[in-house]
Amino acid sequence: MTMPDLVATRDVNALTEWLAQADPLEIAEELGRLPVADRAIPFRLLPKDRALEVFEALDPLHQQELLQGLREASVRELVEDMDPDDRARLVDEMPAKIAKQVLGGLSPRERALTATLLGYPENSAGRVMSPEVVNLKANQTVADALARIRRIGGSAETIYALPVTDDERRLVGALGLRDLVLADPNTQVGDLMDREVYSARVDQDQEEVARLIQEADLLALPVVDTEGRLVGIVTVDDAMRILEEEQTEDVARAGGAEPLEHPYLSTSVLGLARTRVVWLMVLIVAATLTVNVLQLFETTLDKVVALALFIPLVIGTGGNAGSQSATTVTRALAVGELRPTDVLLVVLREARVGLILGGMLAALAFLPTLLFIPDQRMAVVVSLTLLSVCTLATLVGSLLPLLARRLGFDPAVMSAPLISTLVDATGLVVYFLIAKTILDI
Amino acid sequence: MTMPDLVATRDVNALTEWLAQADPLEIAEELGRLPVADRAIPFRLLPKDRALEVFEALDPLHQQELLQGLREASVRELVEDMDPDDRARLVDEMPAKIAKQVLGGLSPRERALTATLLGYPENSAGRVMSPEVVNLKANQTVADALARIRRIGGSAETIYALPVTDDERRLVGALGLRDLVLADPNTQVGDLMDREVYSARVDQDQEEVARLIQEADLLALPVVDTEGRLVGIVTVDDAMRILEEEQTEDVARAGGAEPLEHPYLSTSVLGLARTRVVWLMVLIVAATLTVNVLQLFETTLDKVVALALFIPLVIGTGGNAGSQSATTVTRALAVGELRPTDVLLVVLREARVGLILGGMLAALAFLPTLLFIPDQRMAVVVSLTLLSVCTLATLVGSLLPLLARRLGFDPAVMSAPLISTLVDATGLVVYFLIAKTILDI
Repeated sequence: MTMPDLVATRDVNALTEWLAQADPLEIAEELGRLPVADRAIPFRLLPKDRALEVFEALDPLHQQELLQGLREASVRELVEDMDPDDRARLVDEMPAKIAKQVLGGLSPRERALTATLLGYPENSAGRVMSPEVVNLKANQTVADALARIRRIGGSAETIYALPVTDDERRLVGALGLRDLVLADPNTQVGDLMDREVYSARVDQDQEEVARLIQEADLLALPVVDTEGRLVGIVTVDDAMRILEEEQTEDVARAGGAEPLEHPYLSTSVLGLARTRVVWLMVLIVAATLTVNVLQLFETTLDKVVALALFIPLVIGTGGNAGSQSATTVTRALAVGELRPTDVLLVVLREARVGLILGGMLAALAFLPTLLFIPDQRMAVVVSLTLLSVCTLATLVGSLLPLLARRLGFDPAVMSAPLISTLVDATGLVVYFLIAKTILDI
Repeated sequence: MTMPDLVATRDVNALTEWLAQADPLEIAEELGRLPVADRAIPFRLLPKDRALEVFEALDPLHQQELLQGLREASVRELVEDMDPDDRARLVDEMPAKIAKQVLGGLSPRERALTATLLGYPENSAGRVMSPEVVNLKANQTVADALARIRRIGGSAETIYALPVTDDERRLVGALGLRDLVLADPNTQVGDLMDREVYSARVDQDQEEVARLIQEADLLALPVVDTEGRLVGIVTVDDAMRILEEEQTEDVARAGGAEPLEHPYLSTSVLGLARTRVVWLMVLIVAATLTVNVLQLFETTLDKVVALALFIPLVIGTGGNAGSQSATTVTRALAVGELRPTDVLLVVLREARVGLILGGMLAALAFLPTLLFIPDQRMAVVVSLTLLSVCTLATLVGSLLPLLARRLGFDPAVMSAPLISTLVDATGLVVYFLIAKTILDI
């Protein structure tokens, strides 16, 4: 039986058995799929330390829903034991009234830590860092440093990356626990530490911070205030979560929708519709341009109805070529392979790519077009249009993400649907101009 | 002056100054943008330990290109100092002859380590793990364990995650260096270790491994062979790189192109065209279906040419709605929020989302259509078509990724361009059937 079945039948023995053999990630995943009212049933059967592990693996929305089903004492215990940065994330999602109640149940120390984090702007390094960081001094010996870590390291988020500060708490270096453990106990921390140390400012964007952690292969990144004083540390697990969230956002935008705030199955049908409706409306308004264009050429169309047959094929191909180049350029920008200033470089490359692709499609389409309409001039029109539209679309598709970035927007809003829609109208103009010239109408 | 300018002018003093103030990531990024022949110039000016850091931050293709510009002794030294898993990645990209030469220059120990990794299948955990892992025994004391780490930990990839094995090297638990440092030196490792330990099989797919590291917030994951014996460890930095690569692949596929193997600027124009041409051809062949459909309804079109005006708008909207739901479902599958078996659940949700969106668009489009064609029946045709096409596209867009996954394909191949193209032909059929009924032709 699956876990939801066990919960539905209220078979406590079998459920306890299932919980004992599953790992915390599996339990968290199954909990998220249970009806909200049933989630507390298996959760209460977990031993205390496993319960915390499972709780930490839940999405903040699911954490909040679960808390509503637990007794007050359990809630206080769970929230007290969370890391301050995870707790800040949870509290952030709660209605203000519940948040106040939950924070009120905390020890003064833990409450202060969370309040500090919530004081920083959204999406800043300050919001995701842990203020519980162990710092060393350059004039300590390795033995002293290890003693300090044993004394105060128990509650720190990480002791693997150790910032070194001066007397004003300003960051002067860093070293890893590894260096300490492998070094002679009498060495000075100052001789061992790396003076070239990556750090983030507390108001820096969290995506930049996460990307730095990834690119420099760090386990944690010290965070400093505007005066260079150490205030916290961001760990690699937070970096991975941030990158995944940013990724989900980019992917949603690339598909022409706003990102979901909660897991798919926890988002209502109306919520799903809301993430899509705005773009869909914008796009249909943009698409009325194609009606204008076609009305402009209505007499041409009236004379040669056969021209209508290739409208979807021609504009569809333009849309596809545009999506391809937009996707490639947007990704290259996201991972830092391209810079917003590389416009000319990209245009020159993509123009050639577009010509090559357009040329191949034009050649491919010539004979099949003759099969549909046995008129060589019509085949020439379709082939020439494919060549032009493909080149045009590739150029537009690569330029728009670069321009968006230069203007300070997320390049991902230059989505495949938006580019297709923009290319549709221009593609039709090109098609009819070529047709009028070649067919002489 | 920028770094490329300094290189172009061969200004060694200014270049040395620039290198001294830049961090290794910046240097690697600028190197990757220099002409291949010039890259060795700044690289040779770097002190030895920084040179290795910069080298490790380069893409494998750029590493290989750089090696060609260096003297044999420097090449040997650089490659000898790399971690075995990074070296395996580099060698993997080289032409066989150069790879043999480079491996031949290594010490027997390092050569053996790399050869082991290269023996595992591509994209498996074995390919990305480091065989240099420090394992502990359950009956050791903490003091003994720390002594062992000091003795052999220097060359290990990580000493932060420490697998515990029995006498047959079978994995029985794990603990972090943190636990050792914070514990009483006389405690037994067996009493301290976590017996519930995540691990990967050596032949397991690297994306699964990376996702487990991310979801369980691990710094490293032990890798075992088919008999459960410890053979290596995968670290979190490799997990981040793997997830980024998989992400780049998914994003490219979602845009209807194959992923680039090398950074954008290092891919030739022909190489770019090659990643896109196959899909573009497949899609244009699929698009001929629209020509067929239109030919089928050519007499209808001949009677009411005004019907042609709304073709791009109607099928474009269908394509957009389909892209949106495909993107949402594909992402939910990728991050594990949906399972391939959730078909019915998703269909019921998306059908309702499609009806809501279609209804809103139908209402929105009614009056503007009257402005273009002052015939109420025509406005009814367009509105009804939008409602039907939107619902249909939303359903198709959500179903296809789920079906792809169940059939064992990457759901990302159900790209926005593919779904648009498929929806185009069906959308046209719906449009003309509605038109024939309402306009009575």
